[in-house]
Amino acid sequence: MSSAALPQRALVVGCGLIGTSIALALTARGCRVHLRDADPSVAEVAASVGAGTVDPVEDPELVVVATPPSVVPDTVLALLAEFPDAVVTDVASVKRPVAAAVAGTPGERRFVGGHPMAGTERSGPTAGSALLFEGRPWAVVASSQSDETAVESVRALVVALDAVPLVMDAEEHDAAVALVSHVPHVISVLTAGLLVGAPRDHLDLAGPGLRDVTRIAGSPTGMWLQILDSNAGPVRELLAALRLDLDRVLDALDDGGEVLAGRLSDVLDAGRAGTRRIPGKHGEERAEGALVLVPVADRPGALSALMADIGESGVNIEDFRINHEYGRPVGLAQIEVAADRADHLTSSLTERGWPAYR
Amino acid sequence: MSSAALPQRALVVGCGLIGTSIALALTARGCRVHLRDADPSVAEVAASVGAGTVDPVEDPELVVVATPPSVVPDTVLALLAEFPDAVVTDVASVKRPVAAAVAGTPGERRFVGGHPMAGTERSGPTAGSALLFEGRPWAVVASSQSDETAVESVRALVVALDAVPLVMDAEEHDAAVALVSHVPHVISVLTAGLLVGAPRDHLDLAGPGLRDVTRIAGSPTGMWLQILDSNAGPVRELLAALRLDLDRVLDALDDGGEVLAGRLSDVLDAGRAGTRRIPGKHGEERAEGALVLVPVADRPGALSALMADIGESGVNIEDFRINHEYGRPVGLAQIEVAADRADHLTSSLTERGWPAYR
Repeated sequence: MSSAALPQRALVVGCGLIGTSIALALTARGCRVHLRDADPSVAEVAASVGAGTVDPVEDPELVVVATPPSVVPDTVLALLAEFPDAVVTDVASVKRPVAAAVAGTPGERRFVGGHPMAGTERSGPTAGSALLFEGRPWAVVASSQSDETAVESVRALVVALDAVPLVMDAEEHDAAVALVSHVPHVISVLTAGLLVGAPRDHLDLAGPGLRDVTRIAGSPTGMWLQILDSNAGPVRELLAALRLDLDRVLDALDDGGEVLAGRLSDVLDAGRAGTRRIPGKHGEERAEGALVLVPVADRPGALSALMADIGESGVNIEDFRINHEYGRPVGLAQIEVAADRADHLTSSLTERGWPAYR
Repeated sequence: MSSAALPQRALVVGCGLIGTSIALALTARGCRVHLRDADPSVAEVAASVGAGTVDPVEDPELVVVATPPSVVPDTVLALLAEFPDAVVTDVASVKRPVAAAVAGTPGERRFVGGHPMAGTERSGPTAGSALLFEGRPWAVVASSQSDETAVESVRALVVALDAVPLVMDAEEHDAAVALVSHVPHVISVLTAGLLVGAPRDHLDLAGPGLRDVTRIAGSPTGMWLQILDSNAGPVRELLAALRLDLDRVLDALDDGGEVLAGRLSDVLDAGRAGTRRIPGKHGEERAEGALVLVPVADRPGALSALMADIGESGVNIEDFRINHEYGRPVGLAQIEVAADRADHLTSSLTERGWPAYR
């Protein structure tokens, strides 16, 4: 789709995990990359891992702003002025603030926002990797004023980094991330918050479901304050809708019996339907999978040994999950394979001494 | 702790997944098990997979009720009367209804409830496995009227099946499962429900966080209606508390800026603190782990090959997770190892041709 070539010269401003990873990927593809950071020593570290150079690269065709979100709008404006021929993009996770800052300025046509849906639990330049974006969605946020060539340049960047470009405007983007990321985060936080005052032995009954729902609530508070502040409107709208549904549940629980069943089954059915809308979760084009279950002792080498024996079985693995709960004697490995291969994998693992079952 | 022996003769009533699995485990340990089901052909199927016999076993010392939850109280009462010397237990996921039914009856002292925190996505007798309970928590729900020997018998059953017995009363149990299971389920359902009306391209930005939060919302509606109906009080209480916290978030989002930061940081901090209370999630006794990341192409054999090469590396795997998103070209394998082994695993996988990074 994209005919634009990758830039020969680029500037990356902000050498944290994302900025350094973009710079590493550009450098690996033959682009000369100038690295800048508010803290020059951070740019030096990024340069030392091969992300580019701290020496200026003349006339960059592409400028990538990967600073903390709160300073993105001002940084983008300054760079549009400093490099009057360059396309400028950014990677902030909320797009309306920078779109609003750029609107009506002379550089507006050369700015196209971006948001790679990628990250790791690590941070900083030494955590950067040119592979970080492989297969990840990356929103390309154009406005009606954006030059087509600028959009194509940013799209070319995304494609070159093996990510999946999704072109949308800032309003759409922010509504989308409120739905798929910010509201789930708030909900996860509120659920985890209920655990604070609970007796310890109540928590001993916790299983994988609670862990799944609360996993993202463990993220750093500071970053999420910035995100929720800058996307307050769309997040509030969805949380208010959820609150209405919650009130329906509370009313139904008050009533009990037939009334409860009628009201709650609507809510529960909507939830099931919602999970089926998540792309790929129930891949329509794939054969239905089957699970093979293997309890794995919590001792050194057990999981590695299981993986080696799964590899030996010759069965293609579609998915693998382990509920490995520290402090309990065993975890439960869940291996998804094509339905017609589940028996073969079960017997192959059983022969190798594993207590596999379906 | 338990000095009680496993029974020599048992009756299992209800031959679904849980009943058949208990029967299989008892049979494997030398107990003679009589299988009953409201549908005799289901008991026949359970017998055919080795769970026991459909012929009566005289004078069972232990009776296990594994029927659908709505008929548990009446079934328990009938069986206490039918077998005046047996200890009777059940496996229903809410314990107050059966405790209330039994209270004040002549058989009360011989009844001790149970709730194994185990299950698979499959159901019915052919899905049963003697290994289903390995390492799982299993609530042993005694009342002040329960005979100590009856409690010990049920505890012995749990221990013999390699599960972890947690003794508590019915009130405590139901409050605990409301917290760790029922409320997270409702919350997951409400979040997934928001996805129903959303534009498809908004959902294309979905990542692992949304999948985690909504995973359990895909469960069958009918079973959850029964659970929420029978545990309405404790669930309502916790959901009402969560609603107050949600209102604080909505108010903060209205205010924005400094006020938002002050209020929301309390909520976000409480969420982080809550996740740390889940047992074992941050195993204090283990060395801090490190993640090695490997993009894995979505093609047959790729994941099996990676597992084989992980096995070959000789590095002990603490945990393994893959965000394998159907319809995208690659998934991201996240391999947790001891921090001082991460570099070795990364280079070992790189040598074998994998794009591993940290």
